[in-house]
Amino acid sequence: MEIILYGKPVAEELDKNSKKVFDEFKSSNKRNPKLTAITVGEDPASLLYVSRKEEKANDLGVEFNWIKLPEKTSQNDLDSQIKEIIKESDGIIVQLPLPRHIHAEQTINMIPNNLDVDGLTALNLGNLYSDNYKIIPATSLAILELIKYYNIDTNDKNIVIAGRSRLVSSPLAKILSSKKYNANVSVIHSRTTNQKSFTLNADIFISAIGKPKNYDISFLKENSVVIDIGISSVDSQTYGDIDTSNLENHLLSRSPYPGGVGPITVSALYSNLAKLIS
Amino acid sequence: MEIILYGKPVAEELDKNSKKVFDEFKSSNKRNPKLTAITVGEDPASLLYVSRKEEKANDLGVEFNWIKLPEKTSQNDLDSQIKEIIKESDGIIVQLPLPRHIHAEQTINMIPNNLDVDGLTALNLGNLYSDNYKIIPATSLAILELIKYYNIDTNDKNIVIAGRSRLVSSPLAKILSSKKYNANVSVIHSRTTNQKSFTLNADIFISAIGKPKNYDISFLKENSVVIDIGISSVDSQTYGDIDTSNLENHLLSRSPYPGGVGPITVSALYSNLAKLIS
Repeated sequence: MEIILYGKPVAEELDKNSKKVFDEFKSSNKRNPKLTAITVGEDPASLLYVSRKEEKANDLGVEFNWIKLPEKTSQNDLDSQIKEIIKESDGIIVQLPLPRHIHAEQTINMIPNNLDVDGLTALNLGNLYSDNYKIIPATSLAILELIKYYNIDTNDKNIVIAGRSRLVSSPLAKILSSKKYNANVSVIHSRTTNQKSFTLNADIFISAIGKPKNYDISFLKENSVVIDIGISSVDSQTYGDIDTSNLENHLLSRSPYPGGVGPITVSALYSNLAKLIS
Repeated sequence: MEIILYGKPVAEELDKNSKKVFDEFKSSNKRNPKLTAITVGEDPASLLYVSRKEEKANDLGVEFNWIKLPEKTSQNDLDSQIKEIIKESDGIIVQLPLPRHIHAEQTINMIPNNLDVDGLTALNLGNLYSDNYKIIPATSLAILELIKYYNIDTNDKNIVIAGRSRLVSSPLAKILSSKKYNANVSVIHSRTTNQKSFTLNADIFISAIGKPKNYDISFLKENSVVIDIGISSVDSQTYGDIDTSNLENHLLSRSPYPGGVGPITVSALYSNLAKLIS
């Protein structure tokens, strides 16, 4: 019987540990830790994500400082805002995507390493090349926590990652290949023509491409583990990357969509905040 | 007939371009660009590498400032030395490996990004995750320059990299997977048991493990390209990773050892210096 890798218990476990750190912080510092989120513009998905982060902050005893800037904010004004909030925050999120006239990387790189809860500054990503990294980008961390919670063995396993995004696949490929995980990692992408020659050999297949139901049973190795982290929307309905029809008992386990990695991502962010303040 | 991918013409091409930049630098600044190399201790291989860099500096019109520190140098003294030379150098190399009592990463990370000719600081490595990187770590760059010089097509090709070192394989895997190269990249390592299931599907096999003659013809796909960047020594003889016996006409092309990627590496370093000062 296929096991469904629900994200909720993983998120709860992370939250429990983070809350302990936040409570200790509060009793030593006589205040709650403070996370500042900056949004520029009105992208509905971004606003939704940030409001989820705000809810979680309330649950965990974190002061959530949401700075909503108008779409037309200049790079200079944004930079000054960031400089201000650095002084008074324990963690900073600059929600992506940013409007086109804003230089996203340069903006993200203004966040000091000790406040970088998303783990997306160049300096933090570069630290992943060492074995002493502290902060893993939140979505990558969510996947690693899922793997850990469900005792999924990665040693000498063939892991295929579909997608090569800067913020998810690339850091994840690097980490899963490291001595801690010892996986044999292959990265495929939209320009890979013979995808099945990879996916059908994947003991663990991680899909992060964001195309609705792109991979059906014909792509998936029997008794393998499938982790779906793609999200796409068509006609205001959202989908994962995996077409789950007829999958019964084909796989050893799989993360569902929704309810898989998604719920862990926000908790991973707070887990990073907990690491930064302790 | 198998093509041998000699490094020498690639190095000469790089040097020609670098020299042009250095000559321009000299005529604008009335001085040669200055590269400072720091060695700590007497590791013979390190001293040999640095002396090769020094020779090349002389050829290219770069002032080479070699600071030789004793094995027992403290972290503090090393740090102060680096702070001093930052003021008066156009590029800095801290030769690895460093003695055990020195924190190598912390030391490397003292090099400002604009002087980091080796491309090994965390900040520079993190920039590789963006598509706007400027400096590629010298050995990775050497391989990419070899690929470019010999017009090796990487698009949708299966590239297998053996080895997962921080300084070579990991940055290279990331870059070859990016939109500029579009390769399907797999990384294998000492804990991969079924290596042939990867190597026999490799259109391009890059070996960076440093074990003498580890891969013979039985590992190599017919008509594939093999790039050997491993170096190991046994009884004061040095070897590459590839056992070339009986290889006649099995491969499309291969880099030899010696005379393959090695000679390009030093030139790649100066190519990085040229990028940094222009």
